[in-house]
Amino acid sequence: MEATPTQRSIHPDAIRESELPVHETILTGDRPTGPLHLGHYAGSLRNRVRLQAENDQTLLIADLQALTDHIGRSTDVRRSVLDVAIDYLAVGIEPARSTVALQSAIPELSELMVLYLNLVTVARLERNPTVRAEIALRGFERDVPAGFLCYPVSQAADITAFRATLVPVGDDQLPMIEQTNELVRRIAHLAGHPVLAECRALLSDTPRLPGIDGRKASKSLGNAISLSASPDEIHAKVHGMFTDPRHVRVADPGRVEGNVVFAYLRAFDPDPAEVRALEARYREGGLGDVAIKRRLDEILQALIAPIRERRTALARDPGAVTAIIRQGTDRAREIAASVLRDVRRVFSLDLVATELRD
Amino acid sequence: MEATPTQRSIHPDAIRESELPVHETILTGDRPTGPLHLGHYAGSLRNRVRLQAENDQTLLIADLQALTDHIGRSTDVRRSVLDVAIDYLAVGIEPARSTVALQSAIPELSELMVLYLNLVTVARLERNPTVRAEIALRGFERDVPAGFLCYPVSQAADITAFRATLVPVGDDQLPMIEQTNELVRRIAHLAGHPVLAECRALLSDTPRLPGIDGRKASKSLGNAISLSASPDEIHAKVHGMFTDPRHVRVADPGRVEGNVVFAYLRAFDPDPAEVRALEARYREGGLGDVAIKRRLDEILQALIAPIRERRTALARDPGAVTAIIRQGTDRAREIAASVLRDVRRVFSLDLVATELRD
Repeated sequence: MEATPTQRSIHPDAIRESELPVHETILTGDRPTGPLHLGHYAGSLRNRVRLQAENDQTLLIADLQALTDHIGRSTDVRRSVLDVAIDYLAVGIEPARSTVALQSAIPELSELMVLYLNLVTVARLERNPTVRAEIALRGFERDVPAGFLCYPVSQAADITAFRATLVPVGDDQLPMIEQTNELVRRIAHLAGHPVLAECRALLSDTPRLPGIDGRKASKSLGNAISLSASPDEIHAKVHGMFTDPRHVRVADPGRVEGNVVFAYLRAFDPDPAEVRALEARYREGGLGDVAIKRRLDEILQALIAPIRERRTALARDPGAVTAIIRQGTDRAREIAASVLRDVRRVFSLDLVATELRD
Repeated sequence: MEATPTQRSIHPDAIRESELPVHETILTGDRPTGPLHLGHYAGSLRNRVRLQAENDQTLLIADLQALTDHIGRSTDVRRSVLDVAIDYLAVGIEPARSTVALQSAIPELSELMVLYLNLVTVARLERNPTVRAEIALRGFERDVPAGFLCYPVSQAADITAFRATLVPVGDDQLPMIEQTNELVRRIAHLAGHPVLAECRALLSDTPRLPGIDGRKASKSLGNAISLSASPDEIHAKVHGMFTDPRHVRVADPGRVEGNVVFAYLRAFDPDPAEVRALEARYREGGLGDVAIKRRLDEILQALIAPIRERRTALARDPGAVTAIIRQGTDRAREIAASVLRDVRRVFSLDLVATELRD
């Protein structure tokens, strides 16, 4: 499970991006906790743009999940909802091909979660490696909010509510897929027949893009390049990137491992062969940081300029963006409602109870 | 908290039935896990009939809560929903005065629960004495379903969703009221102003009615007298009641403590002075079990006959009962929806998000 990128045994519930999935129902999305950055672009956004052509894709803006560890910062979450939607549209997500939906506007997700909570033990949630790691990361210790411990159940509700067959996740999120499939099988067992779709993880082929200082990119560290960065910001961030502190003179041999500029070039340079050649020259000595930074700056300026322009145009018309979220949410609710009906039937909530509902 | 009935210090969040509450908003109800019996009648049903005149009372049929420990027996739960509603109407609950509502038909309750889960820690739930006792009782040990651990949060959702100010509970349920009020105060703190009503417990003055064998009345033990019992069943159950095994001859002195017949006489005899006189005679010796059982049999036959008749009539027209539940549920949903709007506003789900909802 905790396989490293180099020696990775593919999980039975997972496929890789390079398998180019088609005709799948994909659920993906983001917690709206700030504007998206180049790390999101490299790791997921650009794949979503590619996947939307041949698959049925829903992008869920997971504001309820964001509240599980931002309960006192809900205004930030709210503000980010539009930001994230604008980022989606600016990078090329097309509302005619992808469904952009807002989690908190789909009550069926809460209803599914409450039902699913009866099918998972507390001990099983506490054993979930992803949850354990996230709890440790946030320093919750004994003060874990119940909603946070239960978020795999919320994710299972999201995944099953859209009948997703494929869920793009990082390696560290594989336990979430397993837990979802356990629930799917538990419900099939109780019903005596399959009710919900099992899902597979879609694992990225792109290594995680570091922040400009080489640490994990994060809003609070200010080490990411946002999709709305100005030309000056891009220039300054590229200029400040961590390279190899022992590569002092141009003639010195340099390290490309852990060198942030090369990580970004590998992610964004349209000419991978040239990047490999540059890496070789850098290793030998004779290639300066100024040269590779200039190259990266040009690439990122060219990448971000049209995104920034579309962002600016979209931000001028928030009503139109809201309308897109509304339409996507309506579409998403239809599917979620049909799944909820199926699940309620398993728990005999279909007869008296469903009759009582509009 | 764990006060005994004899040395009870009244809890600050509690009042006693004898205080005759008026103008309160009362939430009460039952888990539909079987037909109601005389224990329910003595402990709660007849008080509800009294309370409905001067208070705004909702009776919630808590089918979702029943699923937290009946997940594999959902058809039993479903079947009991109508049974419980029929019991309510048969004992004198009037739909014009009391709201009879079905929990699973009110999605707002699930939405509130999911939001509240972020405001309670796992440790706090694990410390709840009622939850601990119930977990031990069910023998869940490490396999506690997450939904079961979280049921105080579900109860808090129910109580606050109807803006209840008074909740009839047993002494052992006081921690649930406390946990609800903690949530109410937490939300007020986050909002900067009161949002939800705090509630008080309404403690019964009636001791818990035992089963006919002196043990706790329970469906599985078959030791309760149901509200639909036939004359023969009533007669047989009264005849089989535990009295005092050392009270062999009529002339022998007998014990009234732990004597089930006297427990029922104290609960149901319309002449309490006469019961006290009978107890005195029984203690002294000279009063036989046959005599007290005959008296109790007559009282219970008179009590149950009209309830049984109304039950039979109601059971013939389940559509009418369903319509009553439907109307009550609609009324309950209106209040729950207004509470949900208030709570969503606290979490900044009112602006973009609420706009997106119908």
